[in-house]
Amino acid sequence: MKLTGAQLIGSRESALSDETFTGINPATGENLDTDFHEATKQEIDEAVALADSVFSEFRDRLADFRADFLEAIAEETMALGDEFLERTAAETGHPIARCAAERQRSVNQAYLFAEMIREGSWVDARIDLPDPDREPMAKPDIRSLLQPVGPVAVFGASNFPIAISVLGADTISAFAAGCPVIVKAHPAHPGTCEMAARAILKAAERTRMPDGVFSLIHGRTTDVGKWLVEHPKLTAAAFTGSLAGGRALYDIANARPVPIPFYAEMGSVNPVFVLPGAIKSGVNHVTSGFVNALTMGVGQFCTNPGLVAGIESEQWDNFAADVAERVSGFTPATMLHAGIHHAYTTGIENRNAIEEIELIGKSASNPDPEKSEAAAYVYRTTYDGMAANSELYEELFGPVSTLVGCAGLDEFVAIAEKLDGSLSATIHGTEQDLIDFRPLLKVLQRKAGRLIFNGYPVGLEVCHSIHHGGPYPATCHSYFTSVGTRCIERFVRPVCYQDWPDSQLPLALQNANPRGVWRMVDGERSREEITG
Amino acid sequence: MKLTGAQLIGSRESALSDETFTGINPATGENLDTDFHEATKQEIDEAVALADSVFSEFRDRLADFRADFLEAIAEETMALGDEFLERTAAETGHPIARCAAERQRSVNQAYLFAEMIREGSWVDARIDLPDPDREPMAKPDIRSLLQPVGPVAVFGASNFPIAISVLGADTISAFAAGCPVIVKAHPAHPGTCEMAARAILKAAERTRMPDGVFSLIHGRTTDVGKWLVEHPKLTAAAFTGSLAGGRALYDIANARPVPIPFYAEMGSVNPVFVLPGAIKSGVNHVTSGFVNALTMGVGQFCTNPGLVAGIESEQWDNFAADVAERVSGFTPATMLHAGIHHAYTTGIENRNAIEEIELIGKSASNPDPEKSEAAAYVYRTTYDGMAANSELYEELFGPVSTLVGCAGLDEFVAIAEKLDGSLSATIHGTEQDLIDFRPLLKVLQRKAGRLIFNGYPVGLEVCHSIHHGGPYPATCHSYFTSVGTRCIERFVRPVCYQDWPDSQLPLALQNANPRGVWRMVDGERSREEITG
Repeated sequence: MKLTGAQLIGSRESALSDETFTGINPATGENLDTDFHEATKQEIDEAVALADSVFSEFRDRLADFRADFLEAIAEETMALGDEFLERTAAETGHPIARCAAERQRSVNQAYLFAEMIREGSWVDARIDLPDPDREPMAKPDIRSLLQPVGPVAVFGASNFPIAISVLGADTISAFAAGCPVIVKAHPAHPGTCEMAARAILKAAERTRMPDGVFSLIHGRTTDVGKWLVEHPKLTAAAFTGSLAGGRALYDIANARPVPIPFYAEMGSVNPVFVLPGAIKSGVNHVTSGFVNALTMGVGQFCTNPGLVAGIESEQWDNFAADVAERVSGFTPATMLHAGIHHAYTTGIENRNAIEEIELIGKSASNPDPEKSEAAAYVYRTTYDGMAANSELYEELFGPVSTLVGCAGLDEFVAIAEKLDGSLSATIHGTEQDLIDFRPLLKVLQRKAGRLIFNGYPVGLEVCHSIHHGGPYPATCHSYFTSVGTRCIERFVRPVCYQDWPDSQLPLALQNANPRGVWRMVDGERSREEITG
Repeated sequence: MKLTGAQLIGSRESALSDETFTGINPATGENLDTDFHEATKQEIDEAVALADSVFSEFRDRLADFRADFLEAIAEETMALGDEFLERTAAETGHPIARCAAERQRSVNQAYLFAEMIREGSWVDARIDLPDPDREPMAKPDIRSLLQPVGPVAVFGASNFPIAISVLGADTISAFAAGCPVIVKAHPAHPGTCEMAARAILKAAERTRMPDGVFSLIHGRTTDVGKWLVEHPKLTAAAFTGSLAGGRALYDIANARPVPIPFYAEMGSVNPVFVLPGAIKSGVNHVTSGFVNALTMGVGQFCTNPGLVAGIESEQWDNFAADVAERVSGFTPATMLHAGIHHAYTTGIENRNAIEEIELIGKSASNPDPEKSEAAAYVYRTTYDGMAANSELYEELFGPVSTLVGCAGLDEFVAIAEKLDGSLSATIHGTEQDLIDFRPLLKVLQRKAGRLIFNGYPVGLEVCHSIHHGGPYPATCHSYFTSVGTRCIERFVRPVCYQDWPDSQLPLALQNANPRGVWRMVDGERSREEITG
């Protein structure tokens, strides 16, 4: 595919600025082909205005047609072929197999949302029937359902260049809801973004969606994101990335004359607590899973387990020794880009300078900084060491974790209390451990969006029940998830109809229930039609 | 009941500050009994810390016990007797009958939430069953449900001293969710607040809720609200009131190191569009309802219809004449307090100074400013008059509205486009009008949270399907409602359990489904247990 590096404003290309940048292969430092043009304010205005102008038309398409669009996106994504995976691998250092897995996740996700909107119950249709005879006041007919909010901006993540970028859940769920999308391409994988965008545009054309339901804009400067979030016609934005970047845009969204929700998922520490039952009978099953979770994808997951707490004991010593040995076997590998690599190596230097922690294990072979390679590191400290170094409670993005030896439940609870909000918290142990350590669980329940038992937080299941969110700084609003079907809730709002004529109601609210959706009628769940 | 004017920090009274204020009877200007103490920062800290300390215990109470608590609140509210209504009437100028109606709404609301949490399906339990044989990766067991966020602050409204204050949906839904509540008493009805608070405290004691699930603090200064919203242990806040007050606290909530959601409902213009079919056959049925909606409660509703657009015609002239005549029959009445009265009279002066609008009707008798009385006013203008005066798009709180004559659909659409977000939008007309004026509806659907046909927005039905919210400035987050059972969503967040032992899961997620709640199992709605 020939890339142009232009802004894709609907089907139209625009490259007003002479300021350009390229993708860079992090494994070689080489500039990749294609000059990507920094978007101008005018181009951003045009993209959002176009999205706004087609919103009503897109919203009012039957859900089935929007489902066709989502399925066509899946097909066109696959049709990009190996060239797509190769470009992604070149821009990110991800192995081809990882790129293929991400593509599969995106494609499955598009089908899942298509299925959900064809079925239709997700709109949460609610009906309270009228009672003209009620005293002292007649009861009106009230019906409500979820409707899309309007144009949505998406800021993808660097670490999932396919599955949490142009083709991620943000874009797909916004389309499913009926919202036009403007994606700000991630400057670390601009070619991947353009290829994915062209797949979406082709799908939109094939399924006759209005021109403008999708635009892609490029930019390395903070201005581009700022202009996008400040645009008065924008109604919501979704972001995955760093705390600093997310918070800056969140503040801009809130400071607008008309604030809009800014849904940022900003990563977290993802603590793991190893309870006594887990290591009583040997540690291998826990340590192997842990080191795998720690080093997978060169530790570049927002669910990377950055902190592991256990109870000081011979078993804990064995656990630490086993982890150290396994970590030494991790061959240093290329990180996503030079910026992340620099932040990681700086972070490791800082960690090495902390007196109260001990480096107990690291990759046996040395990383090549020219290739932006990262080694894995595991540190060990005590409860007091944690208490003296609050930076150990902060995420360091990459294959690094700290083992914390505690005296028992009280120190576990104290550590949990000091944790910031986290996407996940993990327990290793037995059922009896969960009972014995209930005070710890009571705290973790307040801190995390997902509680994992005898597993690891990486490898997120995309389904109806998943929650990928949590208290700040994991996200900016803990009600909303950025993965799984519930993430569509970010781009909708309830609209209520009072005494509205049946024929003019949205289908899901009409008496006959022509789509057969689940509804709440006078408080009862039902798929029945309303008669009489 | 003997009032003390102290902060009620759980069951403990505290009055550290010597700075006090009293309730004032707006009809007489007299100070009412009891000196209410301005809360100190220390008292606010104590109230929030206490709420935080009992959160886990309150959260983990069986829903049935929390339902008992809500029902006891209803009973204790009724047990306050006429004295409660008399105090409310004295502090607000509301007639006793209105106070009684508000009390009934609060009591009904408590029973409705009690019923909902006993039934239990509101937690939105979702289960995706595992598949250990799935390739390339085993599928984990994922389950999620809604859980309470933590301590919640409530800022009640002046215009509903019972139904949207201490005993309002904010407090009741937060309790239903499992969140402790700290109410900032409204300084315009502090005695009403204390009496209501004592009913809640008695109910909490009777049903053995932990001491600290409820606190009441007083204050007239902005510091009290600021300290409360800034408190690090606070997890959410709900507010009903003015745009200026709501936005100021919203900005504080967002600027925290750890931002929290601030759910403000700040009123709106609530436009009414009178389509041709509505007045073809005479205007009486429309005008009588309109003037009633306009003047009810001295126009002090956030859903007051502040703008009525029609098509210039003889019929529209008749409509205007009929409205003017009916408005003259409104006897001036006391507003809630001197501040609101002053804002209203100033607003009317400003409106009278606008050249492009004409005062076509007002109360025949003169208001007595000593009694904070408001007369009703109706103005008439044209599309061009609206275009020249953007302040006509802004809410003026009180019994005032503007009739706008338009040339037809295009001007309707242009007016709708210029509207800010609104709690409601109303159409009067026929079913055929809805078809003929579809472009107008497409715009209103983007602007309002509730669309009303041949009715009026005041008199909100408290039920499952109601939505009392809308795009900014109607609220700060259009996904959430402040009235109706969905308002519980403001105080919860999903928590997800991965591969968690069945016996240790919350009841709604256990295989046996012991509470028989509706769940989503592998995407299908069901109340069945999970076997095998």
